[in-house]
Amino acid sequence: MTTPTYDDIVAAARRIEPYVHRTPVFTSTYIDNRVGAFVFFKAENLQKVGAFKARGAVNTVLSLSDADAAGGVITHSSGNHGQAVAYAAAIRGVPATIVMPHHAAKVKIDAVRGYGADIVFCDQAERATVLEELRTRTNSTVVHPFDDPAVIAGQGTASLELLEQVSGVDVIVAPIGGGGLLSGASLVGAHAGIDVVGVEPELVDDSYRSLRDGVQHPATGEHSVGDGLLTGIGSLAFVILSEAGRRILLVSDDEMLAAMRMVAARMKLVVEPSSATVVAALVRYPEEFSGRRVGAILSGGNVDLKAFSA
Amino acid sequence: MTTPTYDDIVAAARRIEPYVHRTPVFTSTYIDNRVGAFVFFKAENLQKVGAFKARGAVNTVLSLSDADAAGGVITHSSGNHGQAVAYAAAIRGVPATIVMPHHAAKVKIDAVRGYGADIVFCDQAERATVLEELRTRTNSTVVHPFDDPAVIAGQGTASLELLEQVSGVDVIVAPIGGGGLLSGASLVGAHAGIDVVGVEPELVDDSYRSLRDGVQHPATGEHSVGDGLLTGIGSLAFVILSEAGRRILLVSDDEMLAAMRMVAARMKLVVEPSSATVVAALVRYPEEFSGRRVGAILSGGNVDLKAFSA
Repeated sequence: MTTPTYDDIVAAARRIEPYVHRTPVFTSTYIDNRVGAFVFFKAENLQKVGAFKARGAVNTVLSLSDADAAGGVITHSSGNHGQAVAYAAAIRGVPATIVMPHHAAKVKIDAVRGYGADIVFCDQAERATVLEELRTRTNSTVVHPFDDPAVIAGQGTASLELLEQVSGVDVIVAPIGGGGLLSGASLVGAHAGIDVVGVEPELVDDSYRSLRDGVQHPATGEHSVGDGLLTGIGSLAFVILSEAGRRILLVSDDEMLAAMRMVAARMKLVVEPSSATVVAALVRYPEEFSGRRVGAILSGGNVDLKAFSA
Repeated sequence: MTTPTYDDIVAAARRIEPYVHRTPVFTSTYIDNRVGAFVFFKAENLQKVGAFKARGAVNTVLSLSDADAAGGVITHSSGNHGQAVAYAAAIRGVPATIVMPHHAAKVKIDAVRGYGADIVFCDQAERATVLEELRTRTNSTVVHPFDDPAVIAGQGTASLELLEQVSGVDVIVAPIGGGGLLSGASLVGAHAGIDVVGVEPELVDDSYRSLRDGVQHPATGEHSVGDGLLTGIGSLAFVILSEAGRRILLVSDDEMLAAMRMVAARMKLVVEPSSATVVAALVRYPEEFSGRRVGAILSGGNVDLKAFSA
C-alpha cells in the first residue's frame, strides 16, 4: 500500500464532486476574539451523512474496478463510516453490507438502512472475524475507514476546498482518530506550504505519542466523548504525518463538551464532540494560533442531542 | 406611518449589505421526502446576533438623520431585537439603551452589553412607561421591533436574498409574531408574483384570527415556546398582509419542539422554537406544499440548549 499524493486528492475532488456538498465556511467574531486569531470553520457537519466520511467512502467506492464493485462493498462501523459506505454504494448502485455492534444507536441503524444497505449485527470482539467471513462468502470489497490511499485522498478534498474558499490560510487544524482526515490535510498543507496541526482527546492519545516517539502505538483502549476518535492511528497516516513532522495537541473530554456547546450557542451549528476537539484546542492553546489565519475542520455533526444539556 | 414598498427593501439591502451576513441556503433530502416538496431553508439563525432582526435594526438605525442619531436609540426587548438594536447602534457609533425585564436570560444581557449598549432593567408591566421616560430624558429615538416601515424593509431583505439565491421559488414561508418578517416577505412575494404563507403558534393565534376576521386582534396573552412570537400583529403588518390576502398556518408547541430537534438532528443547525414553526408547518400541512419549491425562513437560533433534550 503506497501513500496517496496531492494529485490523488485533486483527482478525488473531481470524482466525488457530483455526490458531496461543497460545505460552507463560517467565521465567529466571538471565537476570533477569544483566540486572537482569524478562524475559518469548514462545516463538514453539513456534509452528506453528516460528516467528512462521505468524501473518502465515495472516492473509494467510485474508484473500484467494475469487477470489484460488482461484488459489493463491506465494512464494519458503529458510526459515520458505515453511513458513508452505504451512501457511496447507493451512488454506485452496488450492494453494501455494514457490520455493526448490537449496541449501535437506532438513528445510525436507520440511516444505514435508509441507503439500502444490509446490516449484520455482531459483538464488537467478533467484528473482524464476521467481516472476513462475509467478505469471502460474498466476494465483496472491504472499504477501510482510514487506512486506504483512496479514503485518505477523499478526506483530503475537505482541505483542498477550504483553501479554495479562503485565501491566505496559515494553518489547518483537524481532529485525528485513524488519521484519514489529518493525513489528507497534511498532504494538501505540504503542497501549499502551510502548517497542519492535529487534535486528539487526552484519553485516547496514541497518535500524539506515536508521532512524538516515532513508533506506531496501538489505541489506548480508553473511552472518550470523542467517539469518532477512539481508534488507533493507521499505518498510512503514521507514515504521512511522521514524514511531514506534524504535531498533535491534546484536549480533555470536558473541554470538548464545552466547545461543542459553545459552537451550538455561538455559531448555531450542531457538531459532535470529535469535531469540537479543534475548537477546544483553539481555546486551550491560543498561543499556537495567535494572529494567524486558521482553517479549522468541523468534521461531523452526528451526536445525541441530549449531550447539549450540560 | 405609510407602508414600505418593494423599492424600500431593495434600498435597505444596499444599505445594510456591509453589516449583515448573506446567509446560506440549505436543503434536506429527508425533509423534502417527508413533505413531498423542494424546500430551501434561508438560515437566518446564522445571521449577525443570531436572527433576522439584525436586518431591520441596522436598516432603521442607518436610516436615521444625523440629528436623530445623535441622541442615540432606545428600545425594549427581552430577546433578539435588543441585541439587534445594540449591534446597529455600535455600527452607527451612537449610544443605545435597551430596556429589559429583570428575568432576561444572562446570555442575552451579556450579548447586549458586548455591543456596548446600556441596559435598564424594569418590570415587564412598566416597560412602556420606563421607555418613554428614558426617551424624553435622553432625546433618543425608539426603534420599534416591527411596526416601522424601515424595520419591515430591513426584514424584507431576507426574502429578497432568498429569491436571488434560489430560482423558481413558488412560495415563501415565514413565522409571524409582530409581522415584520412576514410583511417583508409579502412585499417581495407580491413583486415576484409568488405565494407567501405565515406560521404562528396555536397558543398565540392573534395574527391568524386578525387576517381571518379582517380585524386587528390584540395578543392572546398566552405563552408559547415560540417566545419570539408572543406579541400581537403590528398595525403595518395587518394592513400589508390583509391587502395581500395572506394566510396563516397554525402549529402546536409540541410540533415546534419536535421540528426544532429534527432540524438539529438532520440539518445540524440550531434554530429557536419560533423558527421551527415553519418546519412544523411543512410537516403538518404537506398538502399546502406538495410538489412546490418552498423558500422557508429559519428566522433565528437563540435558544437555551437545554431545550434539545426531549
